[in-house]
Amino acid sequence: MTNIGIIGAGRIGKVHATSVQTKVPGAKVKAIADPFMNEETKEWAQGLGIEKAIKDYHEILEDPDIEAVLICSSTDTHSPISIEAIQAGKHVFCEKPIDHDVEKIKEVISTLEGKELKYQVGFNRRFDHNFAALEKAVRDGKVGTPEIVKITSRDPEPPSIDYVKVSGGMFMDMTIHDFDMARFLSGSDAEEVYVQSAVNVDPSIGEAGDVDTAIITIKMKNGVLVVIDNCRRAAYGYDQRAEVFGSDGVALIENDTANNVQIAGSEDVRSSKPLFFFLERYMDAYAEEVKQFIDAIHSGEDTPLGVKDGLEPVLMAMAAQKSNKEHRPVKIAEILADIEKD
Amino acid sequence: MTNIGIIGAGRIGKVHATSVQTKVPGAKVKAIADPFMNEETKEWAQGLGIEKAIKDYHEILEDPDIEAVLICSSTDTHSPISIEAIQAGKHVFCEKPIDHDVEKIKEVISTLEGKELKYQVGFNRRFDHNFAALEKAVRDGKVGTPEIVKITSRDPEPPSIDYVKVSGGMFMDMTIHDFDMARFLSGSDAEEVYVQSAVNVDPSIGEAGDVDTAIITIKMKNGVLVVIDNCRRAAYGYDQRAEVFGSDGVALIENDTANNVQIAGSEDVRSSKPLFFFLERYMDAYAEEVKQFIDAIHSGEDTPLGVKDGLEPVLMAMAAQKSNKEHRPVKIAEILADIEKD
Amino acid sequence: MTNIGIIGAGRIGKVHATSVQTKVPGAKVKAIADPFMNEETKEWAQGLGIEKAIKDYHEILEDPDIEAVLICSSTDTHSPISIEAIQAGKHVFCEKPIDHDVEKIKEVISTLEGKELKYQVGFNRRFDHNFAALEKAVRDGKVGTPEIVKITSRDPEPPSIDYVKVSGGMFMDMTIHDFDMARFLSGSDAEEVYVQSAVNVDPSIGEAGDVDTAIITIKMKNGVLVVIDNCRRAAYGYDQRAEVFGSDGVALIENDTANNVQIAGSEDVRSSKPLFFFLERYMDAYAEEVKQFIDAIHSGEDTPLGVKDGLEPVLMAMAAQKSNKEHRPVKIAEILADIEKD
Amino acid sequence: MTNIGIIGAGRIGKVHATSVQTKVPGAKVKAIADPFMNEETKEWAQGLGIEKAIKDYHEILEDPDIEAVLICSSTDTHSPISIEAIQAGKHVFCEKPIDHDVEKIKEVISTLEGKELKYQVGFNRRFDHNFAALEKAVRDGKVGTPEIVKITSRDPEPPSIDYVKVSGGMFMDMTIHDFDMARFLSGSDAEEVYVQSAVNVDPSIGEAGDVDTAIITIKMKNGVLVVIDNCRRAAYGYDQRAEVFGSDGVALIENDTANNVQIAGSEDVRSSKPLFFFLERYMDAYAEEVKQFIDAIHSGEDTPLGVKDGLEPVLMAMAAQKSNKEHRPVKIAEILADIEKD
Repeated sequence: MTNIGIIGAGRIGKVHATSVQTKVPGAKVKAIADPFMNEETKEWAQGLGIEKAIKDYHEILEDPDIEAVLICSSTDTHSPISIEAIQAGKHVFCEKPIDHDVEKIKEVISTLEGKELKYQVGFNRRFDHNFAALEKAVRDGKVGTPEIVKITSRDPEPPSIDYVKVSGGMFMDMTIHDFDMARFLSGSDAEEVYVQSAVNVDPSIGEAGDVDTAIITIKMKNGVLVVIDNCRRAAYGYDQRAEVFGSDGVALIENDTANNVQIAGSEDVRSSKPLFFFLERYMDAYAEEVKQFIDAIHSGEDTPLGVKDGLEPVLMAMAAQKSNKEHRPVKIAEILADIEKD
Repeated sequence: MTNIGIIGAGRIGKVHATSVQTKVPGAKVKAIADPFMNEETKEWAQGLGIEKAIKDYHEILEDPDIEAVLICSSTDTHSPISIEAIQAGKHVFCEKPIDHDVEKIKEVISTLEGKELKYQVGFNRRFDHNFAALEKAVRDGKVGTPEIVKITSRDPEPPSIDYVKVSGGMFMDMTIHDFDMARFLSGSDAEEVYVQSAVNVDPSIGEAGDVDTAIITIKMKNGVLVVIDNCRRAAYGYDQRAEVFGSDGVALIENDTANNVQIAGSEDVRSSKPLFFFLERYMDAYAEEVKQFIDAIHSGEDTPLGVKDGLEPVLMAMAAQKSNKEHRPVKIAEILADIEKD
Repeated sequence: MTNIGIIGAGRIGKVHATSVQTKVPGAKVKAIADPFMNEETKEWAQGLGIEKAIKDYHEILEDPDIEAVLICSSTDTHSPISIEAIQAGKHVFCEKPIDHDVEKIKEVISTLEGKELKYQVGFNRRFDHNFAALEKAVRDGKVGTPEIVKITSRDPEPPSIDYVKVSGGMFMDMTIHDFDMARFLSGSDAEEVYVQSAVNVDPSIGEAGDVDTAIITIKMKNGVLVVIDNCRRAAYGYDQRAEVFGSDGVALIENDTANNVQIAGSEDVRSSKPLFFFLERYMDAYAEEVKQFIDAIHSGEDTPLGVKDGLEPVLMAMAAQKSNKEHRPVKIAEILADIEKD
Repeated sequence: MTNIGIIGAGRIGKVHATSVQTKVPGAKVKAIADPFMNEETKEWAQGLGIEKAIKDYHEILEDPDIEAVLICSSTDTHSPISIEAIQAGKHVFCEKPIDHDVEKIKEVISTLEGKELKYQVGFNRRFDHNFAALEKAVRDGKVGTPEIVKITSRDPEPPSIDYVKVSGGMFMDMTIHDFDMARFLSGSDAEEVYVQSAVNVDPSIGEAGDVDTAIITIKMKNGVLVVIDNCRRAAYGYDQRAEVFGSDGVALIENDTANNVQIAGSEDVRSSKPLFFFLERYMDAYAEEVKQFIDAIHSGEDTPLGVKDGLEPVLMAMAAQKSNKEHRPVKIAEILADIEKD
């Protein structure tokens, strides 16, 4: 039985705690820490059989019974806590993104070096039943050599403008999942990114220096062309589709719905719109990613998404930001050179 | 080039004339006859390149250049004109049903005996792209041994009560197509029929001694169980679906629609309802059945639907009528014995 | 917090225990009893935070802290334990069927009389996301007045012949769920049942006096016609579809699949077959039915499925058995008269 | 009755001739001209009731009974014959593209000026049942304000390399239809085009200086972002889909198939791939565009696709060519300036 500590008891921390306690054999949450720990959360933790619900995550890092931590705290603490946890000898599962700052991700990488510890970054979408089956079909050669990947990713509604301002921008906050999908489905890293964008949803997003709508074209290193279309608002719900076209065919996935009732009447045929809420849509994926993290600890094999998989999408987001600003295609190599220079 | 005469210039006669002139290579309509032939129809015929548009179909039967006739006149004339046409040495394509009276169908059969003439009955649905592909899938073994056939057949709206009164009843007029489908999809003749019915659409249909809604269960001679559900009205259009379940799987067909637009909004996803009008739904099937009739004349092979295929559904309709009246399963053998007795 | 006792720690008992502990707020399992209780199950119970894992269910009935029991033991014990539990003052959730013997169900009914206790029978399908949404659409008038209900229910593979022999026969064991659906979707009790059946899957099922394939036509008291098609084997998985046709339209549900990947290649387009295993298909429904049972205890309102809802499908199964044997339609009234006579 | 002359008796000329004769009331083909006119084509014309099948199209232009011509000759003759026909006082339906050379299109425009003649360019896709219904949904406000248009357009197989060399390149030959769709579905002209391309299908296409795969991003003047993905080869057939996303929802269209049979077996569910051949896919659209051309002549209203609609997609193709060559976004204004300069 692997003892787990969870750092951060917000929405996603609670999701992971519930997953481990009810769906992940061979692991249990021993402690959960949050600076805003309150009575309600303590009771919830007790109800799930979690021994300790505390304020200070250092208690988790110091507990020799705890082998692994899930970092579910605010984004700006992901990389420093990652480093502390690694130094404390814990396996780490870290919510995405590791950091918006490439240098800090590199510190995590160098801290990990030479240690026999597992590190996994929380790009949950790879563990979704549809996306995972799509990638498997491609990997199994069902479409031949991949040539075009298309990803539709539209949020049901925009975040608050306060969040937008600290989010790192749409490419770093929202498209980052799609950048991960581009790598996952094409089987390659990116070479060049081009963005055509708009502010359609809310002018205050534009005033904050961000965009809310974009078409992103990416050339991957293996020659696959990827196109992502994003919007911060979709009237019909959370729109999460993808398609991989190759030399022998095409594989695609549609949205999930709450039920499959179809009603035909004198006007038309009506059916359910896509699920609205990302937690509803990806609940099983959140459980699956943690399960695979635990499996990697037990088997000694690599986690499915290592720290490099946390770095690459950040580079793609930076290239997208620069392309959007300068209105031209931008190579990842150029971003790396920019970083060197700084 | 096979010269065709068409007897009857009503809706279906015109459909067949247009098909032959524009879609059936190797045949052309030389003459069309209708007791109510008028100027408008004459002009229409001329526009299609039909030489003669006349009142008396005997001119067609007497024309030695005409090899084949399509009988599209009123139902009560189908069997007598069939007999005249056969005696005049013409190949015959006869709209369904040949007759409501089994004795008259048998007269057509005996008139045909010993003659080198083709006879085809117009069960158009066998030539529909969906039904034909479904039957082919079954025949090719895609579902293993067939065990259950399900046929949904609902008209968009009931005929006039005047028509209902002369129609021979729902089983003879509407279900007759489904009885043909039962034979087509099961690959067998019927052994026993059971009906559970209702009058839901219009009480005057009940007052006329007919029903407008029914579940019909049929045991075929090869053991396949068939269930047909009928209604004389469907708010959403012409509902024509089927399913064949077998030892290795199931094959099914859905309705056709005018287009495949899907619109997802804040309420639901909307798409087109099924096509409403039978001519719209089966236009290509009407052309295909005539094309295969002409092909049979040219090749010398049997037509895809001989005169026996016109008889069997009538026997099934009679069994359905008796089952409905006596509220018990009725065997086809019992119907045949009844006919013998009369 | 409502304390629950679970009687029976087999497959379904474990499913319900997990549901209560992780998905049903306001309730927790205090004890689980099973005559074959072993170390492995004890550990599993402990992991879920269940205090007591015991052999004798009487400990549960005698525990004043336990307000409600879930009866998940073998079918033959459902009615006697129901009676004991009611007499001990517990609310009862009882797995289907309450009993194959109508007299025993009536004993449960009379034991309940005058008591302020909740009783729910476990027809889980009513709580499935698709079936529940279909019924809601009908109840909300989306199809007008219901006229035809069609239910397809095919198991992926037949049970062992040993199970078949003690199962009460296909109608009592498998179709019983569909009889419940007939009542649920039509909004009425049954009046008359007609069966046309076959033995296609395994001759030894026939030798055991049972059937494995059937078309069942039911006339409901409100005039709705229901048709159920059953098979004990479907090569493509667990086939669970339904359709309600009414004066204003039709509503229907399809099967659920593991994912919605579509792969188009040079031959055809391929997608996932239906889920194979009933627990996978109905896992959420099992949680939802228990949740609603707990809700009824808390709110004081009726459970969604009372003891009468356990009785009616048994009467329908008996009518089906008699129809199948005597090859004629059989009224429920006739079954009730038979019972009176005995 | 409007007399039509058809110039060019190749594949598309024959399609239009058949459409007019059988599906367009109020018009008939009086003559068809082709420099390679032969006996076989003459017989075919006679069978359709076309009076004259000749070699020299000038006979058509000189025939005072002929009011309108359909120009179906080779691409390089489209603009000169358009001009001759306009000068001869004929209404003109011209197959796409009018010309690859903008100057020549402008000559057609200036020749038309001040004349009461109809001119229509043959972008057939606008008349397809799916694309037309999609555009209507958008125009009717079903998705609110359009923001993103996505067009998938993949040919089943590449043309011969000989054709590729004279085709004007993929953007001018194939994407030109998609550029028209971009304008049709967005309701706007284009402002800027960016291309990311590849040669995946056949290296000899690359050697000929062309590409066979591309992602094309377009910003329209009204702010709508359009993305087109093209490939000269799709193993599963002719892939023609589109999607319009807007402030209130999304509308999309799928491919058409030969039939809708679904076969579920022990492996998966199989259904028909998209139609393979463009004539099969768009046969009805070819008839509808000519019908609307004739309707415009009769009503005096504008044709649905005037000569400007022939010009704009050529400008977009030129911008795509330049973007592809210089690997940067290119504005239509820049292309117009280039033309001015020349």
